[in-house]
Amino acid sequence: MKKLEDLQEIISDAVNKLSFPIYPAALYEPISYILSLGGKRMRPALLLMACDLFGGDVDAAISPALAIEVFHNFTLMHDDIMDNAPLRRGNTTVHERWNNNAAILSGDVMLVEGYKLMMQVEDRLLRPILDIFNTTAVGVCEGQQLDMEFEVLDHVNIDEYVNMIRLKTAVVLGGALKIGALIGGADVKDAELLSSFGEHLGLAFQLQDDILDVYGEPEKFGKQVGGDIISNKKTYLLIKAKELADPRQTADLNHWIALKQFNNIEKVEAVTAIYNSLNIRQHAEDAMQTYADKAFEALDAISLPEEHKQYLRDFADGLLVREN
Amino acid sequence: MKKLEDLQEIISDAVNKLSFPIYPAALYEPISYILSLGGKRMRPALLLMACDLFGGDVDAAISPALAIEVFHNFTLMHDDIMDNAPLRRGNTTVHERWNNNAAILSGDVMLVEGYKLMMQVEDRLLRPILDIFNTTAVGVCEGQQLDMEFEVLDHVNIDEYVNMIRLKTAVVLGGALKIGALIGGADVKDAELLSSFGEHLGLAFQLQDDILDVYGEPEKFGKQVGGDIISNKKTYLLIKAKELADPRQTADLNHWIALKQFNNIEKVEAVTAIYNSLNIRQHAEDAMQTYADKAFEALDAISLPEEHKQYLRDFADGLLVREN
Repeated sequence: MKKLEDLQEIISDAVNKLSFPIYPAALYEPISYILSLGGKRMRPALLLMACDLFGGDVDAAISPALAIEVFHNFTLMHDDIMDNAPLRRGNTTVHERWNNNAAILSGDVMLVEGYKLMMQVEDRLLRPILDIFNTTAVGVCEGQQLDMEFEVLDHVNIDEYVNMIRLKTAVVLGGALKIGALIGGADVKDAELLSSFGEHLGLAFQLQDDILDVYGEPEKFGKQVGGDIISNKKTYLLIKAKELADPRQTADLNHWIALKQFNNIEKVEAVTAIYNSLNIRQHAEDAMQTYADKAFEALDAISLPEEHKQYLRDFADGLLVREN
Repeated sequence: MKKLEDLQEIISDAVNKLSFPIYPAALYEPISYILSLGGKRMRPALLLMACDLFGGDVDAAISPALAIEVFHNFTLMHDDIMDNAPLRRGNTTVHERWNNNAAILSGDVMLVEGYKLMMQVEDRLLRPILDIFNTTAVGVCEGQQLDMEFEVLDHVNIDEYVNMIRLKTAVVLGGALKIGALIGGADVKDAELLSSFGEHLGLAFQLQDDILDVYGEPEKFGKQVGGDIISNKKTYLLIKAKELADPRQTADLNHWIALKQFNNIEKVEAVTAIYNSLNIRQHAEDAMQTYADKAFEALDAISLPEEHKQYLRDFADGLLVREN
């Protein structure tokens, strides 16, 4: 089994070697630019890992892995327009550096380039793999739509939230693993189990992210503690808190959410106190554990040598680190 | 051979029957909306026509034909954002009726839906047809990019202009015909000849459009005469005029182009007079004829019964109507 870092390295090298036409420059430069901003290349590395797990030739999976990375960056390019984001990985976003039109159109051609890369598979796998890619792509668009809608909705319930993060982030992880597994020679059943592993792990990881925003150690976490609270982001924690709050706690929460001018530390402390009184952290960790369990259940059912499963368990344990 | 009107009718019915998920509504409603605005459904009808020409089963070509129509409407949805267009076929554009983000994201998922429809072909045709679709899609994006760039460039030459309209409009016609031909059972050589016919016919048609803007009869043409002149649109006529103009004519042209306040009729008359003095109409008609000739040359070389070729000739003659 190849190490995850080595697979990420293979992807980084392959991304660096990707070349696009030079004319029209304004169409293709934003693609090279956003791809050059780096990132962990986790999605394509997972695709390679899945291929490797089933004894496949990792080289044969590089183009489809690049497809997943190009697709992911297409979604980032368009999401950044929609979210009005000035920065991406510490660099100017495409729509800020060029303009909205360039970001729309370069994103469009990037999606097509993603398909071109994804098609670089054996004929017998072309249709099943493109079916997965289509499903993944539709899911991500639906997830982004729901994410934008939820921002302006008063009430979102837990099921809706989980469905949104599943579509927006978990589905791609599952899709990447499933495609890699098929290229590696897995049968459909095992590929689907691995996909289920990835999707549930993605959900658990996203819930962990919500928890760490409030309860993580800032040094390890690398973000401002309570960023989600400050911005009123509808996380699992906030949605669950609204669900469980008594009238006084509800009034308290709504007060902080409505407040236009506030001291950040004060707001984070006040909302965290409400979360604590409702035992929200435990609720969120239970939910996270439920998804992690489902991931491991799917993993157990895959027909793979025990050491390969252990590799995946170690990978999952590495992702789901307890910070406190 | 089925009549073009009947093929357009088949497409209209199939478009009406297309259904998309209902959740999230704001993602899928814009798709149904833009598809409901009508249009001549020329591109998908051409795809069916090509299939029919080679004796194929038109029903087997409906999904790919819908793919071309969905793809075309995706490009319209995004182009309308980029062009800040308030109206599309007399109706509010998607980004005006919803908002820019909805138009971006619905367009994205529409492109994926286009791929899903295009994949509804026999396995042996899946890769070649998707290759054509990819090339077409990339071409259209490049054409739109060049079109936007040319709007703000001082100097565009004839070759650049022809390349732009080829990419933006002609390539899709060629692509639709090629895909239809392959589904109809044509060999690659004939499919490419038919594609060349369509692409050159598209170029001739676009040049005719440029000519008719200035020299068409308004009653037949249905548009304001000289609209391109009023808006300083870089058409074949304007580019050629700038190329051929002597210093005095150049100064005259530049004067009218730079003028911010003017009487429309006066400007159209003045610029048309410059065109006339440079014999621009003849130049444009010669160029148009050159592309029409190339279209008919490709057509002659196709291995099809003479009556089928005559059908295509009649179709082309119908498109390239002399208005004066």
